[in-house]
Amino acid sequence: MAASLDAKRTINELKELRSLTGDENGAQRVAFTPTWAKARKWLRAKLEQPSVEIHNDAAGNLWATLRGESDRALLIGGHIDSVPNGGWLDGCLNTMAGVEILRRINTQYNGKPPVTLRLVDWADEEGARFGKSLFGSSACSGKIDMNETRGLKDKDGVRLVDALKEHGIDFEKVKDSGKELANAASYLELHIEQGPVLLDLDLPLGTVLGTFGVERHAITFRGQAAHSGSTPMNRRRDALLAGAKMSPEIYRIAERSGQGVCTIGSCTTKPGIVTSVVEECRITLDQRHLDAAALQRMLSEAKAASEKFAAEGDVDLAWERIWNIEPILFNNDLIALCDEAISESGVKPHRMPSGPLHDAAEVGRAGVPTVMMFVQSLHGISHNKIEDTKEEHLEMAVIAFDKLADKAIQWIATAQRL
Amino acid sequence: MAASLDAKRTINELKELRSLTGDENGAQRVAFTPTWAKARKWLRAKLEQPSVEIHNDAAGNLWATLRGESDRALLIGGHIDSVPNGGWLDGCLNTMAGVEILRRINTQYNGKPPVTLRLVDWADEEGARFGKSLFGSSACSGKIDMNETRGLKDKDGVRLVDALKEHGIDFEKVKDSGKELANAASYLELHIEQGPVLLDLDLPLGTVLGTFGVERHAITFRGQAAHSGSTPMNRRRDALLAGAKMSPEIYRIAERSGQGVCTIGSCTTKPGIVTSVVEECRITLDQRHLDAAALQRMLSEAKAASEKFAAEGDVDLAWERIWNIEPILFNNDLIALCDEAISESGVKPHRMPSGPLHDAAEVGRAGVPTVMMFVQSLHGISHNKIEDTKEEHLEMAVIAFDKLADKAIQWIATAQRL
Repeated sequence: MAASLDAKRTINELKELRSLTGDENGAQRVAFTPTWAKARKWLRAKLEQPSVEIHNDAAGNLWATLRGESDRALLIGGHIDSVPNGGWLDGCLNTMAGVEILRRINTQYNGKPPVTLRLVDWADEEGARFGKSLFGSSACSGKIDMNETRGLKDKDGVRLVDALKEHGIDFEKVKDSGKELANAASYLELHIEQGPVLLDLDLPLGTVLGTFGVERHAITFRGQAAHSGSTPMNRRRDALLAGAKMSPEIYRIAERSGQGVCTIGSCTTKPGIVTSVVEECRITLDQRHLDAAALQRMLSEAKAASEKFAAEGDVDLAWERIWNIEPILFNNDLIALCDEAISESGVKPHRMPSGPLHDAAEVGRAGVPTVMMFVQSLHGISHNKIEDTKEEHLEMAVIAFDKLADKAIQWIATAQRL
Repeated sequence: MAASLDAKRTINELKELRSLTGDENGAQRVAFTPTWAKARKWLRAKLEQPSVEIHNDAAGNLWATLRGESDRALLIGGHIDSVPNGGWLDGCLNTMAGVEILRRINTQYNGKPPVTLRLVDWADEEGARFGKSLFGSSACSGKIDMNETRGLKDKDGVRLVDALKEHGIDFEKVKDSGKELANAASYLELHIEQGPVLLDLDLPLGTVLGTFGVERHAITFRGQAAHSGSTPMNRRRDALLAGAKMSPEIYRIAERSGQGVCTIGSCTTKPGIVTSVVEECRITLDQRHLDAAALQRMLSEAKAASEKFAAEGDVDLAWERIWNIEPILFNNDLIALCDEAISESGVKPHRMPSGPLHDAAEVGRAGVPTVMMFVQSLHGISHNKIEDTKEEHLEMAVIAFDKLADKAIQWIATAQRL
């Protein structure tokens, strides 16, 4: 007997959460703040139901567990935290769809599904306050850089470790959360696309092949400050000239790479005054590709270009790696099941990489078979109060994601029997 | 009878001033600070001699007057204020050479030269604290923008008008200093070049034809912030891409202009984070040329280029004028006399424009026949503690400048008789 899933209830609950924790500028559920704690309390109340056990792990991730006939577990994940002035769907759509699916399965199987079902609400996916995204999921995957993270402070000088303590988390023990993955047989995540690809294709849903690998660097060009009036053009060592040439260059590099993207997100100049040639120009470069070799080619090409521009302008050059992650490829079986779930919802499936990182990448790199489903974003915009998705698409997404959960349960149960 | 001028004394006095008002980072005589007031006190003591009257005008400019047989006056100007961490010669070489010439002429003519001789030490040429250069001389020329200047504050929030009050200056009356120019028949200024032109030509001295006109603008490109991972390259409205294209472009514009220079001195990006396409890129553009029509052509070309780049990237564009000044051409007779003075010092004269602005530009635009002499800068660098000039060139400069003063006195006296 199939219990019924109420996708409209998910939308109503998302609106309830928005009223409770947003303001006229958007969502304000920044992790490890009082508003986030309030959202978590609200979420716990939504999860309380017979047969469901709720607890926080060592990294502050919230787990709701419905024990099945098998300990092998299907995990559904999301994050209720947001950036400041964020959108109403990013992260919490996943969590609330998971809540609804947990309800449906609990009812359908009378509190005892064939495999264990677990909903996880990851702590601090966004990293908005301390600049460290995927905090809870990277602690759980064991990939978190403890030394780097330990020193983080917010803009008011509050240390991450102290903010964690206020929420009952001992920073030194966050990797203990890794034991939560012991019986994980599969991980599913639904997310808004946050880009314009499905919108441009006029498709509501997409199957995610994996998350882009990322190479993130700061590039500093150093020339010589000189008076803007007295220094002939051919005597200048203009750091900005070299840095500026990188901007059109990365578009050529991305184009040659096929599917990759490159972004210079910031440019700072010193002394940075109207009357001086720029002595130091620092840019940040973010490069992403689903193919590891292609990502390394993009990086090499950017390095070669920067060396050429530095030489042309007689300026010095320094590269500094800020962060990197390899591409995470999702599970082929689950990708096929996701396509099926979308097809059965009456729309054309479309396979695509994810440019943004998600908690799914951390779970995937920890070795758990993983897949994500995307739902179209209007405007192709997120991390902003104008972030939105058509309600009919949200409903369709919750229903298709529920179908995927069913398929994954069968897939786990079948593997169990083999 | 020719009294002797002691150019070595000028160098020694410059070193004395450096010890008194500099530190390991360079000169610290920022106008309207205690260190500047200390330098001014020291200067006053150097000026005290029989027949010389000393007073401050309404804008804080210091005048030392040796009354001659005619009220028609030869003015020699300099500025003892410096930028923070400045060089040991910028501005005060002029002042101290003037002090020595005043001594020599006072002695030679027994306190009564044929025309009146006046040394002026301008207040706040650099504008280092309040961002408003040529303060004292623009008040004296009457060209100061009272409304704009009245609102200026330093980085600590101290208002310019309050800082002036502490030094006995009533901001609302600074233009009263204009009466000091009533009998001005000629204005001379010696200055380090602050650029590499004389160094490259291996020449110690130059005759300055005038000061470049300046057009100074802020240019803001506004696109759309978008996620660096999820936004395909062809869907971006990247404000930095448009702004960056301006950097190589201004080199082409300057080259086409012949003698002009163009500088982008700063570039700021918003939101300016590694994970977002740049929504807003603001650059400052400084363009300079001795020819007014050529300067306007450079400006038009920059505007056209910015419009093209904005259209290519589908971003918005706004120009905002920060400041401008027309080219100031110096007096032809005085230019010829400056050439003569340099030739008679045994070196080849070289005519050149001044890229940097100087107080001489304000005096020239007030209608006083004006010329400047440049002395070679080592490294082509100023506004920095490494600013330097060979001592033999400094001596030669003081001697040649003294010859120019003599020629200017004769020129004024002759015009008087005609």
